[in-house]
Amino acid sequence: MSAFVPQESRLEESAPADTEQHPAHRLGWVEDPDHGVRVPVTEVHLEESPGGQPNAPVRVYRTMGPGSVPEEGLAPARAEWIAARDDTETYQARGRQLLDDGRAAVRRGAPSQLWQGRRPEPRRAKPGARVTQMHYARRGEITPEMRYVALREQCDLELVRSEVAAGRAIIPANVNHPESEPMIIGKAFLVKINANIGNSAVTSSIADEVSKLHWAAKWGADTLMDLSTGNDIHTTREWIIRNAPIPIGTVPIYQALEKVDGDANALTWEIYRDTVIEQCEQGVDYMTVHAGVLLRYVPLTAERVTGIVSRGGSIMAGWCLAHHQENFLYTHFDELCEIFAAYDVAFSLGDGLRPGSIADANDAAQFAELDTLAELTRRAWAHDVQVMVEGPGHIPLHKIRENVERQQELCDGAPFYTLGPLVTDIAPGYDHITSAIGATEIARYGTAMLCYVTPKEHLGLPNRDDVKTGVITYKIAAHAADIAKGHPGASARDDALSKARFEFRWRDQFSLGLDPVTAQEFHDETLPAEPAKTAHFCSMCGPKFCSMRISQDIRDTYGSAEAQAAIAGMQRKSEEFLASGGKVYLPEPTVGPSQA
Amino acid sequence: MSAFVPQESRLEESAPADTEQHPAHRLGWVEDPDHGVRVPVTEVHLEESPGGQPNAPVRVYRTMGPGSVPEEGLAPARAEWIAARDDTETYQARGRQLLDDGRAAVRRGAPSQLWQGRRPEPRRAKPGARVTQMHYARRGEITPEMRYVALREQCDLELVRSEVAAGRAIIPANVNHPESEPMIIGKAFLVKINANIGNSAVTSSIADEVSKLHWAAKWGADTLMDLSTGNDIHTTREWIIRNAPIPIGTVPIYQALEKVDGDANALTWEIYRDTVIEQCEQGVDYMTVHAGVLLRYVPLTAERVTGIVSRGGSIMAGWCLAHHQENFLYTHFDELCEIFAAYDVAFSLGDGLRPGSIADANDAAQFAELDTLAELTRRAWAHDVQVMVEGPGHIPLHKIRENVERQQELCDGAPFYTLGPLVTDIAPGYDHITSAIGATEIARYGTAMLCYVTPKEHLGLPNRDDVKTGVITYKIAAHAADIAKGHPGASARDDALSKARFEFRWRDQFSLGLDPVTAQEFHDETLPAEPAKTAHFCSMCGPKFCSMRISQDIRDTYGSAEAQAAIAGMQRKSEEFLASGGKVYLPEPTVGPSQA
Repeated sequence: MSAFVPQESRLEESAPADTEQHPAHRLGWVEDPDHGVRVPVTEVHLEESPGGQPNAPVRVYRTMGPGSVPEEGLAPARAEWIAARDDTETYQARGRQLLDDGRAAVRRGAPSQLWQGRRPEPRRAKPGARVTQMHYARRGEITPEMRYVALREQCDLELVRSEVAAGRAIIPANVNHPESEPMIIGKAFLVKINANIGNSAVTSSIADEVSKLHWAAKWGADTLMDLSTGNDIHTTREWIIRNAPIPIGTVPIYQALEKVDGDANALTWEIYRDTVIEQCEQGVDYMTVHAGVLLRYVPLTAERVTGIVSRGGSIMAGWCLAHHQENFLYTHFDELCEIFAAYDVAFSLGDGLRPGSIADANDAAQFAELDTLAELTRRAWAHDVQVMVEGPGHIPLHKIRENVERQQELCDGAPFYTLGPLVTDIAPGYDHITSAIGATEIARYGTAMLCYVTPKEHLGLPNRDDVKTGVITYKIAAHAADIAKGHPGASARDDALSKARFEFRWRDQFSLGLDPVTAQEFHDETLPAEPAKTAHFCSMCGPKFCSMRISQDIRDTYGSAEAQAAIAGMQRKSEEFLASGGKVYLPEPTVGPSQA
Repeated sequence: MSAFVPQESRLEESAPADTEQHPAHRLGWVEDPDHGVRVPVTEVHLEESPGGQPNAPVRVYRTMGPGSVPEEGLAPARAEWIAARDDTETYQARGRQLLDDGRAAVRRGAPSQLWQGRRPEPRRAKPGARVTQMHYARRGEITPEMRYVALREQCDLELVRSEVAAGRAIIPANVNHPESEPMIIGKAFLVKINANIGNSAVTSSIADEVSKLHWAAKWGADTLMDLSTGNDIHTTREWIIRNAPIPIGTVPIYQALEKVDGDANALTWEIYRDTVIEQCEQGVDYMTVHAGVLLRYVPLTAERVTGIVSRGGSIMAGWCLAHHQENFLYTHFDELCEIFAAYDVAFSLGDGLRPGSIADANDAAQFAELDTLAELTRRAWAHDVQVMVEGPGHIPLHKIRENVERQQELCDGAPFYTLGPLVTDIAPGYDHITSAIGATEIARYGTAMLCYVTPKEHLGLPNRDDVKTGVITYKIAAHAADIAKGHPGASARDDALSKARFEFRWRDQFSLGLDPVTAQEFHDETLPAEPAKTAHFCSMCGPKFCSMRISQDIRDTYGSAEAQAAIAGMQRKSEEFLASGGKVYLPEPTVGPSQA
């Protein structure tokens, strides 16, 4: 079904020099020539084994695409597919307004660094049409996006269509983000990770955010959320989307709040709706909507150790309290569904009442909101709108599994998208680790996408290094879960790296790792000399003695017919032994535990 | 039973200035005046809540003790207790020989930096006596060491005695290491962590290793293994033990190998036995012995992706192959037990055949060795010798639980002590994280102690920063497991930190964290100004808007009688709802998954 066609030249042509993680990495393509679909992959080239046997290149799922030049943006690769469906049209769009970039822009009369690059003309569904991947899937239609995803996941095309149709997976693909490479989020597929970036009222710039996008995608972020809350929100997002090969998510209430100068009580459905349309036209692929924070749930948080920690959740809770009215996101939810269906924007139903400490985990407020998110999932599906459901947060290890199993049951398998969860509150500065432990556990039981946490969580805004650390840490969690789930081929890269390790192919150990640069730096700290990269020993044991070498001797001695016999014999012995109850038969010790 | 007596003066008197992690931390003592036992704890002093209510200091388990001056060493606090038992005696000890420090020392005629500080005269059991904590416990005797541990763990004294008697817990306490503060390793108690240090033929010095000891203990290592393989092994170990408030472990075969210049085939039982006695006299508290690597198991590793990765395991496998004889550690095991019983050295039964890649996990070689370790556990117990059993290694997440449950069943609950395990092989440079994920999982199901992994694993030797990162990462894993196990009071520190977070007591968030220094550095990167430490907002949301503030409003509104009523009502609703099967009753959507 797919032919592998490496295209090394492609790289030099258009991608920035820093696209690849390592010199041994090359941009390659998996192609489906019959349907004109091709998916970029990273091809890791390996050295020969000591015996001279070649090692086939390892192909790695790639989120960077071919890379882009920030001022130009990416080519609108999906534009043809979207147009060919002939169910969308360009129209007199809302366009950008000065207030969209915040009060500072209004004062200055312009945002800083207006986007000058390539920009597709905004489209939306023709009257009465639904243009979502779920709609096509339910009609039994195979879209190029589905083909692309199947090729990318190396899975069956019908699996993609049926999971999307059932709502158990989503392909976030706004018709106004034709630059994006289709990807799928669902428990039947590889576990995905999201990276959050965004400037704030306190710090950072447009250039920073675009470079964080490139950086996050280079290290493997599958989607990116722009959580900007400061100046130039609209223009920052424009730069990000035009350069994004991955789906972009936002939390529209953040920008709406900026438009009313941070006064939650002044928010209205009209301001929110207008902001959503602004973002639909720009090409945001999924939006976090805190429609499950109902007035009657708010009191449930009063006795918590950490109350409401979700920004969007507390905005809506504050609004509900101030007006003594029901959450307008809930009361206008169907109208929101109609808008999303016209652009194929997916819901990320926000968990505004998620616990902010392990003490508040799995409490009445959290689960009451989940019940409402299940209701909203069905209402969105009634409009053929794609949905994921957001999850916590801070949860002790033994209470994590219940979260995903309960969400999957209540929401009929809609993809779960969780932040961590953090399994302890006592490690500020290390919450990428406390949360990766919980993330691996929750993904193992069916969470489809993990929102990363950086070392700066709870303390400050992530810089480039933090973004990289967060992404790599979450690639570990997602990959460990793929292996635990028995995902087909998930351990191929592990096995290739372990073989390289056993054969002292140091450079291959680096290039097969999630972070070749750091691995090589650490190695060179102890053994800087180039020969050490091929040395048949390492700093742990030194040149005189090496366990790997003895293993090689053993293999030379026993890696043979007689070995097979010996091994078969041992295995039989061991099986008999276990069959017999796995107890070791010994004379009871004269002094034993029984005398304790 | 225990009175809390803070003794701030104590600190100034004798401990190095850098003993405490943070200015808000003070050395305090938990005392049992009736029995003259007192245990050092770290007292974390907190600020007032915004309303002016004081917050009680939080007491934290402390492994640093009062700290020591490297050249002097620690006071032999346990010496009286040991002498009072009157079952040990000083004797014409083997003492130090030049070759103990390696060939370089022989050439130079002396080791570098000979130990000049305080040194207890070597003791051993009087003829026929067994001086192990297990022996006393089985006799129903309560030792000061047991009292110390019960006070330290804030648990019942009889729990300590009975678990030690049953072999389900150990108190590593060589009579020649009177400087050590008793601690207990067993699944009924707090999960412990071990830090590995040690120089190698390739790099590092005595001063480095002592400072790594202090450093590891300062951040919370419960035990430390000296895995030195280079020059001055004996003298390096002397410096470490004399300064160690925590139990010290070694792998004697490493030093024995140095004595035969790295030629595994030249090893003999006599050389090994002599090395063990040398280390018993120095005060090593537990020793890793690879007695389970049997000749007939060696072929089982031939087909592995990574063969034998344990250094000790491959040494013994190599020896067995070269001599076509059974492992001399196995054939002389009872003699070894007699030696250990005379000094109270605990076995750490090495898993020489542990998997070195997830591909080799839970295979015939690994489990065959475990069967033998179970046999050896019983043989050691027959001599009243304390035992832990070592475990892997590299294990995918879904195969971890089987490891601990199988070990606990086969070894009748002897403490399990595992290295990680790493849940994937593809992240060199991040193996502290890949292994912390596995470590939390295995500890949750009963592993008693976790051997840390640093970011340098597989790549080089850890420096100070790596040691700290490894220790903090493993404190996270151990603590997360304590919480998941429902260990009494385990989440008190989490709750105190979360309350501080909710109340914007920034300095308390830092001081209650596992690494106050790093937490504060990260915070200051974004908001350096001192006022920001008390600001009622953070860089995530900025000054205009704050979710925590809205939560406070909610609490003010509902934290009252009517709130209780409302909450009670909601909880009832939610319970009824769940009782009714937890389904949301809605008109079926007109278009639903069923039509997919």
